[in-house]
Amino acid sequence: MKKRRESKTFGLPPGALVYVGGHKTEKVNINLLQYSNENFDAKTIKEISEYSELPGKNMISWFNIDGLHNIDIIEKTGKTFGINPLVLEDILNTSQRPKYEEHDNFLYFVMKMLDYDLEKGEMTSEQVSLILEGNVLLSFQEYPGDIFEPVRNRIRSSLGRIRRSKGDYLMYTLLDTVVDRYFSILEITGERIEKIEDKLLDDPSREVVQEIYSIKRELLEMRHAVWPLREALNSAKRTDSSYISAEIKPFLNDLYDHIIQVIDTVETYREMVAGMMDLYLSSVSNKMNEVMKVLTIIATLFIPLTFIAGVYGMNFRYMPELDWKWSYPGIWIIMIVIFVILLSWFRRKKWL
Amino acid sequence: MKKRRESKTFGLPPGALVYVGGHKTEKVNINLLQYSNENFDAKTIKEISEYSELPGKNMISWFNIDGLHNIDIIEKTGKTFGINPLVLEDILNTSQRPKYEEHDNFLYFVMKMLDYDLEKGEMTSEQVSLILEGNVLLSFQEYPGDIFEPVRNRIRSSLGRIRRSKGDYLMYTLLDTVVDRYFSILEITGERIEKIEDKLLDDPSREVVQEIYSIKRELLEMRHAVWPLREALNSAKRTDSSYISAEIKPFLNDLYDHIIQVIDTVETYREMVAGMMDLYLSSVSNKMNEVMKVLTIIATLFIPLTFIAGVYGMNFRYMPELDWKWSYPGIWIIMIVIFVILLSWFRRKKWL
Amino acid sequence: MKKRRESKTFGLPPGALVYVGGHKTEKVNINLLQYSNENFDAKTIKEISEYSELPGKNMISWFNIDGLHNIDIIEKTGKTFGINPLVLEDILNTSQRPKYEEHDNFLYFVMKMLDYDLEKGEMTSEQVSLILEGNVLLSFQEYPGDIFEPVRNRIRSSLGRIRRSKGDYLMYTLLDTVVDRYFSILEITGERIEKIEDKLLDDPSREVVQEIYSIKRELLEMRHAVWPLREALNSAKRTDSSYISAEIKPFLNDLYDHIIQVIDTVETYREMVAGMMDLYLSSVSNKMNEVMKVLTIIATLFIPLTFIAGVYGMNFRYMPELDWKWSYPGIWIIMIVIFVILLSWFRRKKWL
Amino acid sequence: MKKRRESKTFGLPPGALVYVGGHKTEKVNINLLQYSNENFDAKTIKEISEYSELPGKNMISWFNIDGLHNIDIIEKTGKTFGINPLVLEDILNTSQRPKYEEHDNFLYFVMKMLDYDLEKGEMTSEQVSLILEGNVLLSFQEYPGDIFEPVRNRIRSSLGRIRRSKGDYLMYTLLDTVVDRYFSILEITGERIEKIEDKLLDDPSREVVQEIYSIKRELLEMRHAVWPLREALNSAKRTDSSYISAEIKPFLNDLYDHIIQVIDTVETYREMVAGMMDLYLSSVSNKMNEVMKVLTIIATLFIPLTFIAGVYGMNFRYMPELDWKWSYPGIWIIMIVIFVILLSWFRRKKWL
Amino acid sequence: MKKRRESKTFGLPPGALVYVGGHKTEKVNINLLQYSNENFDAKTIKEISEYSELPGKNMISWFNIDGLHNIDIIEKTGKTFGINPLVLEDILNTSQRPKYEEHDNFLYFVMKMLDYDLEKGEMTSEQVSLILEGNVLLSFQEYPGDIFEPVRNRIRSSLGRIRRSKGDYLMYTLLDTVVDRYFSILEITGERIEKIEDKLLDDPSREVVQEIYSIKRELLEMRHAVWPLREALNSAKRTDSSYISAEIKPFLNDLYDHIIQVIDTVETYREMVAGMMDLYLSSVSNKMNEVMKVLTIIATLFIPLTFIAGVYGMNFRYMPELDWKWSYPGIWIIMIVIFVILLSWFRRKKWL
Repeated sequence: MKKRRESKTFGLPPGALVYVGGHKTEKVNINLLQYSNENFDAKTIKEISEYSELPGKNMISWFNIDGLHNIDIIEKTGKTFGINPLVLEDILNTSQRPKYEEHDNFLYFVMKMLDYDLEKGEMTSEQVSLILEGNVLLSFQEYPGDIFEPVRNRIRSSLGRIRRSKGDYLMYTLLDTVVDRYFSILEITGERIEKIEDKLLDDPSREVVQEIYSIKRELLEMRHAVWPLREALNSAKRTDSSYISAEIKPFLNDLYDHIIQVIDTVETYREMVAGMMDLYLSSVSNKMNEVMKVLTIIATLFIPLTFIAGVYGMNFRYMPELDWKWSYPGIWIIMIVIFVILLSWFRRKKWL
Repeated sequence: MKKRRESKTFGLPPGALVYVGGHKTEKVNINLLQYSNENFDAKTIKEISEYSELPGKNMISWFNIDGLHNIDIIEKTGKTFGINPLVLEDILNTSQRPKYEEHDNFLYFVMKMLDYDLEKGEMTSEQVSLILEGNVLLSFQEYPGDIFEPVRNRIRSSLGRIRRSKGDYLMYTLLDTVVDRYFSILEITGERIEKIEDKLLDDPSREVVQEIYSIKRELLEMRHAVWPLREALNSAKRTDSSYISAEIKPFLNDLYDHIIQVIDTVETYREMVAGMMDLYLSSVSNKMNEVMKVLTIIATLFIPLTFIAGVYGMNFRYMPELDWKWSYPGIWIIMIVIFVILLSWFRRKKWL
Repeated sequence: MKKRRESKTFGLPPGALVYVGGHKTEKVNINLLQYSNENFDAKTIKEISEYSELPGKNMISWFNIDGLHNIDIIEKTGKTFGINPLVLEDILNTSQRPKYEEHDNFLYFVMKMLDYDLEKGEMTSEQVSLILEGNVLLSFQEYPGDIFEPVRNRIRSSLGRIRRSKGDYLMYTLLDTVVDRYFSILEITGERIEKIEDKLLDDPSREVVQEIYSIKRELLEMRHAVWPLREALNSAKRTDSSYISAEIKPFLNDLYDHIIQVIDTVETYREMVAGMMDLYLSSVSNKMNEVMKVLTIIATLFIPLTFIAGVYGMNFRYMPELDWKWSYPGIWIIMIVIFVILLSWFRRKKWL
Repeated sequence: MKKRRESKTFGLPPGALVYVGGHKTEKVNINLLQYSNENFDAKTIKEISEYSELPGKNMISWFNIDGLHNIDIIEKTGKTFGINPLVLEDILNTSQRPKYEEHDNFLYFVMKMLDYDLEKGEMTSEQVSLILEGNVLLSFQEYPGDIFEPVRNRIRSSLGRIRRSKGDYLMYTLLDTVVDRYFSILEITGERIEKIEDKLLDDPSREVVQEIYSIKRELLEMRHAVWPLREALNSAKRTDSSYISAEIKPFLNDLYDHIIQVIDTVETYREMVAGMMDLYLSSVSNKMNEVMKVLTIIATLFIPLTFIAGVYGMNFRYMPELDWKWSYPGIWIIMIVIFVILLSWFRRKKWL
Repeated sequence: MKKRRESKTFGLPPGALVYVGGHKTEKVNINLLQYSNENFDAKTIKEISEYSELPGKNMISWFNIDGLHNIDIIEKTGKTFGINPLVLEDILNTSQRPKYEEHDNFLYFVMKMLDYDLEKGEMTSEQVSLILEGNVLLSFQEYPGDIFEPVRNRIRSSLGRIRRSKGDYLMYTLLDTVVDRYFSILEITGERIEKIEDKLLDDPSREVVQEIYSIKRELLEMRHAVWPLREALNSAKRTDSSYISAEIKPFLNDLYDHIIQVIDTVETYREMVAGMMDLYLSSVSNKMNEVMKVLTIIATLFIPLTFIAGVYGMNFRYMPELDWKWSYPGIWIIMIVIFVILLSWFRRKKWL
């Protein structure tokens, strides 16, 4: 009988809810932000089912749920808003591919929120799911703390048109914020690439390869996040769902242009990084070549001379040269001549 | 006259039944599982033709046939259920490409059931063919023992909606189980890749290359299994065959998303593995460089000094230095000076 | 004035018949096989124009022409069956790309018949052209001896449905035989690849690279033969020519699946072979590394010791150590200590 | 709490105007060129709002704005001509991808104006945005000084058909000038590639790799500029906007052909540069091989001889050879014989 | 102010005629060939405008213009036959991409006429433009001397159907001749590749890399010439222009097949050449490995022995071994034993 290793979800019926991510916050936070052109309200709620009792249903309501490990909450949310179990399964499966789905009663967007942790010097990735039901927007995140603070500020201080717009504009704003962050990360990546280029020409060390490799991996991950998002946005901007109004379309078009620009940059960086690996290998070869040359020059200069010295160190009784008066200075002259000839040969070969 | 080597099937008329796989179980097992919302029955049958006498024709019947080498049984099965000889040929040809075909009286699905043998540390592959005729499902496997046990359990204990659904849902469930297993295997592959990455930076040995190469091959095989399955699922979810009911379509869509995710991961891993090969080669170059440096430093330090010692080991009668009082300590000083100069030169070159 | 080299066909008007292949059989053989459900007849004929006098016109007639260098015969055949001169030109041009063409009065199929010469250990390629005019099938080959013997046997012994079918089934059977042979060749290639893999890990020699390269070339040639055939079959199976009856379509579909499987395998092998080249290069690097290490260890161990011995081989008159009683054993101890230190340093560096 | 680095535009509402480029001219220049078949006028204006008071509205007006950092001017321009804020944002975002957009009241073209700075020996890139509203054309550039001088001269001296044509022809002329400049740059790149090829065969130095790498990067950048422009032109030439008249279409077709030619050349150069990197690596390997050979020859020739000399330098009391008369010349003969044998062995191995 | 380098055409209005090629024949030759089924006439004319006075307008007239530097002649030709200035610009721009254009009063074909200069051993490329206006065909070439001589002969001696056909057949014949020449060049390339393969296995020298690289470049150039021609032919064979009659279509189809075959071969050769570069690099590595082994064996054999000899060459007064009777032969035995052990160790390592 073969031994097997099962993944967390193997063998479960479809629609069964399991959180596959590793992170568990102590507590799942549900933040509710409600606003209209005139009013604004922010609170933390405990149960999503409190929603039915909340006032201000004609306001725009943004539920932000941090933490996916409490399946009970997710399930209740699903029941309250009538979300398909297959979609709930996708929300919990944090290795989901970015996509956009239209259901009868809601729109569903899932994507990767990338960020750069400057302290650890590495990119972080988190799955964000958005569900839009008219003026109710649900956002699901894996970890507390996000990049949406500026959006909240804009709502709070009524900056731009956000307070005058509907739920679809809020959804667009969140998407836009995620995509904007991609640009920030690409900027950092661009700077890292430039630093590596300088290092490659100065002093190509082992660390450089590791850095190249780590950038390569991050770009691969970005690509993974960005390409499917392009498809998703393309479907969204061509939709005729009533949840996305006509005046949002130009914004989605703009966003689509941005994502294409991100893709372009990612691909360009990928090519540059590939080229840098070649550059590195060629510079390692060059260094090895240089080391070899030093060895060869030294060995080639001294080995013949040592041989000559060895010859006249032999103890044969009948070696006439040993008794000649000018032997010793003569040998020095011969050795110097050999030395000079070899040296000039190396110079002609451009090794010196 | 040229000598030729014929494959097992060469020159046979189309539709001729030959099992091309290598495995032969002692006996071909036919398991029959019959269930409806209320009833459940599992038995092992000897002859597929017994089927006509079996009670419970309005139940869902799942015939599972383990072992393909008994062509007689396959042929009888074909006759009993009216399966096209070309399809039977495909079932036996275990190097079949995954595909989906609609015939007048049945649907035909063939795919690869991948598994990971933890003991041998290698991926195993087995061909599974599914034939759906209304509420009768036939599954053909090469070896006894499969990954469908959880499905049987779900049927037995009436978990999820499986007992309330038709034959198409059963077929979907089996497909889903196969695709779910792909995720488990990718998880294992992901862990192997991470281990290799760590090793590559610590101590790149010959075993690492072999491991990289074997992962490369397994990914190639997975790709081979997964890409055509995507096409097959795409046709299945767009079908208008009456055997696939409308309520199954969302499940097939979900499955299609999963297979795309598998493809994405396979391609990402392939790129990562390709990058790791580069990393390995660069680290071998680095090690060689380091070895060269040690050799060069030692040789460059001592060869000139050995030459000097050789000179004063010569036996010329007229060597004035030999008789000077301070010659010997003087030579030591000269040698130490040369040693120090070379050492600092190496340090300036950053070889030390 | 520039010198030029002209190819055999340069400057000729289109439709001019020139055989560009290298092979010339002594005599062109024309074999005629005639059969219907009841009758069977095989003979060798001298002139294609004899055909008009032959009995059994309502039987299926298969003319097989071995050897293309006798342009006279080809031309007469063309006239007898009303074949377009441009098609005749294609039949003779043995570097033709596989293709399928429908003409008013006939169908034209050209493809590569690949075979594997076990004695020479190399793949052979031959162009086969098929022309189907109702129940008359013409096949043109470059060399005598082919892979169609099993087909002739099946006709002779009335195996399968071939005797009950029309000319289109005969054409399909020949196509199927050619494609089946591709599988045999891929099987051989697969075995060669496995052998190389074993060798690569044991003892990567120069012959392995040549073998890899030769497989690479053969796969390239197969690809050349197979990809266009896929297109050709695709057109054939979608045709609405009256020469291809509806009952042949499933067989063509099946054949199309086979050719896709061939393509898949060819591409997979190509990737594996590419990966093997990397493996080889990395193993050569490893071997070089090992050689370097041996050299470095030996040189590094002995060069300093030789230097010490050299110092005490100098002939200075005033060398106090020379006269001390314990100098000689002391020097041995010093040298052994140095030796052991270096050895343990290498061990720490994991070079030993 | 993670630290973050924000890009200039992160978190801003869409349509917010921020100039992301680095360059700031002291003053933003607005040049206005007005012409018709009979009249011509050129002036520098301070405020775009002066425009409403300017005479000659039925003339063609070309506003050229150098410098994008003065957001106030851009904003006023936008208001005066009714330009969408999202478009204004794109004009300021100088990492924009080339594109073509049709709006209700204007056409928008954004592309990269490449140039080659011969002094610094590097390619420069600048974003140019064109907005066409009937006979009014707005062009936005980042830096003062451009490549449009010949166009201005042609207008001034009424060369060609430009004075007889409408605003769309002016726009086409500017596009054409930008694309023409691409050819000049490719010509320079072609010459640099040829120089590198010569160097690679003569004396492959480290500088060559850097040069190859820098050309690679520039080609990558050109590609980035050129591929999307192709799409943009394709949309433009298929438009049915009333701003682009039918007689301009052949010119746009011609321009499209040119851009395809640019793309072809860029891709060809990219392949050539990739091939050159291989050539470089192979020539470095060759040089290393040559260095190794010299070392090996010298060491192999002298090490055995030095050993022989060492043997007869030993001080054993009982060494009969030392007292023989012909020992010394005999040893010389033996050494010369060994030397000659090794030499001829190297020659047979083709190392000499 | 940046310095710039302008290309010959930069800044000129579209349709301005400039010859960008380098070659200038002393005199531009215009050859006129006129023929019908009965008549044939060939002459050299000075002015294209003489044409209006020439007799035989109902004959087919082929004007062949050698040399593009005399813009005056091109301009007059353009005026005489009503050719669009943009087309004239393309004729003169010899870095034109092959293409096919239909204009109201004529068809325009531009392509590359490749040839192989056997003396210089390199491929030459020349731009050929064809303009067809009913029964008048204009061909423009850069240099005198072309590959069309066989066509002229066929016309002169009324070989094939050319004299019975119209102008479109003449155009097809010229296209066919150009494409046929591609086959000749590919044949030469194929032979060069085979020669390199043999050399690579025998004796991979530096010249081989240069040869590989030069073939690579030529194939790149061919590709550049052939891919767009495929598109052009595709448009031509699908045209419904009245200038191309229905009976020419099968010939164009045939030509299209040929060009696809050329493309296939070019791509195959490109892959083979890429594989050969790998083979070369691996064989250089192998040679280096072999060199290293020789060095290591020699050094490893003699360095320890030389050390031993060095030890007994020391001049310590108290070295008991020096006075023993059997020391000297004993040392020889020890050294021979070490030698043999090392040798057998190398043999076990398969270095010998």
